[in-house]
Amino acid sequence: MKFSRLGRPGKEKPCILDANGTWRNLSGLIDDISGEALEPDALSRIGAADLASLPAIHNVDRYAPAVAGVGKFICIGLNYARHAAESGMDLPKEPVMFMKATSSIIGANDQVVIPRNSKKSDWEVELGVVIGRPAKHVSEAEALDHVAGYLVVNDLSEREFQLERGGQWVKGKSCDTFGPIGPWLVTKDEIPDPQALGLWLEVNGKRYQESNTSDMVFGVAHLISYLSDFMTLQPGDIISTGTPFGVGLGLDPPVYLKEGDVMELGIDGLGQQRQEVVAWQDA
Amino acid sequence: MKFSRLGRPGKEKPCILDANGTWRNLSGLIDDISGEALEPDALSRIGAADLASLPAIHNVDRYAPAVAGVGKFICIGLNYARHAAESGMDLPKEPVMFMKATSSIIGANDQVVIPRNSKKSDWEVELGVVIGRPAKHVSEAEALDHVAGYLVVNDLSEREFQLERGGQWVKGKSCDTFGPIGPWLVTKDEIPDPQALGLWLEVNGKRYQESNTSDMVFGVAHLISYLSDFMTLQPGDIISTGTPFGVGLGLDPPVYLKEGDVMELGIDGLGQQRQEVVAWQDA
Repeated sequence: MKFSRLGRPGKEKPCILDANGTWRNLSGLIDDISGEALEPDALSRIGAADLASLPAIHNVDRYAPAVAGVGKFICIGLNYARHAAESGMDLPKEPVMFMKATSSIIGANDQVVIPRNSKKSDWEVELGVVIGRPAKHVSEAEALDHVAGYLVVNDLSEREFQLERGGQWVKGKSCDTFGPIGPWLVTKDEIPDPQALGLWLEVNGKRYQESNTSDMVFGVAHLISYLSDFMTLQPGDIISTGTPFGVGLGLDPPVYLKEGDVMELGIDGLGQQRQEVVAWQDA
Repeated sequence: MKFSRLGRPGKEKPCILDANGTWRNLSGLIDDISGEALEPDALSRIGAADLASLPAIHNVDRYAPAVAGVGKFICIGLNYARHAAESGMDLPKEPVMFMKATSSIIGANDQVVIPRNSKKSDWEVELGVVIGRPAKHVSEAEALDHVAGYLVVNDLSEREFQLERGGQWVKGKSCDTFGPIGPWLVTKDEIPDPQALGLWLEVNGKRYQESNTSDMVFGVAHLISYLSDFMTLQPGDIISTGTPFGVGLGLDPPVYLKEGDVMELGIDGLGQQRQEVVAWQDA
């Protein structure tokens, strides 16, 4: 199944794509695409529903964030070998975890705002894993049972805020609009192997990132098991699994986002995002 | 005003303390003590209500987390000079920010569980600031206008997970039960100067931490202004403002929490917490 939330801010409706490629409004069945609706029983109920009887949405005016009410937006750092090298960092011995503020989340094609006083805003295409069942001390073998589905994440990063402003990465990862997710959530039954997905990112039509999730240092099942030893993963939590080689920071000289740039990015089977970059405007 | 959420897990009711020291159930007026109810207009409406007409709660069986639906649980590191020294770290030039997972939040007197395989679980009494009005690029002069109130936070920390397991501090800060908040939220009108509050923490009756918020490196107004340059602070977000000298990590030899320990901690005007420490039990 493919889920999305369609509509302008404040008017988002939970939707599902039917077999004919038409979006159907799920508001009669669920409140939103959020933790509760992503648990296995809820997904089964939706899967059994007669989609043809639900209101069709023929004009999609906006792909809102594909998941609402995200509790934790967890990111994994340095999870592709060539990206660790371009970042000038050693390959980690165990997963490097950091957080993005959930207030950074936007829709897949919403505008990305360069923060005030930012000179080093950068892109990162990543496979996002959406949790569907609480996970605490789960083994790698059972980890994927706790996944609801997958989606595309652009883990935007302000490199000066992240690396030169004292301490922890979260400061450069959490700016407003720095977390496009979607355009839709694809349930895991449609993604038989999350470690065999091509992913890519272009800026103004130039391809900067192109890799495959097979190149991850720590795969999805390992990450879920590992993280679940530190905290309970809850339905609706998102784990963004790290970015491959090809970010702006790693180029010589570095290339950062500027007003008017257009980012396009995608992952096999999970759709594409497109963000126009705009400058911060004082009110 | 003093707000709390009273009741066993799943049965928490939003409550307010009346002039006679009796808790009154606010369920008829607001859904919960969360973002929406903490905005200035909502607080004014509650302040104008006839509390005597609300149902009294005579037996408090549990102080649940004093705020529900926390979006961001932001912490400040190394914000007291003697604590930076005991941690073996330099005094920061600008605030060090990190996150705690919101899934770590528990009630003020709930049990704290030592994580599986943890040997270095530690305490940290901190002044928590609860946001009541969205803050983005706010000046230090106007920062406190964005505060709803204050509460006690115990920023529990697993030092091995935080410092020896690769990368970022969040891994040691986010364990389940590592975020007691409350017992109540005190609105800012009752705390004329957040930089003049004594705070203390004891383990098994021995006082380990005792300081005053006047010793902060970066005060509350500065922190709000600073953070609001990186991300929008939203109603219901909590900023935990750093811990003073006296954590277990800083002792020679270090002292860490063990099963059966009892932590008690408090801040002038904000009440006290008491947590019994229990061991992780496999199901």
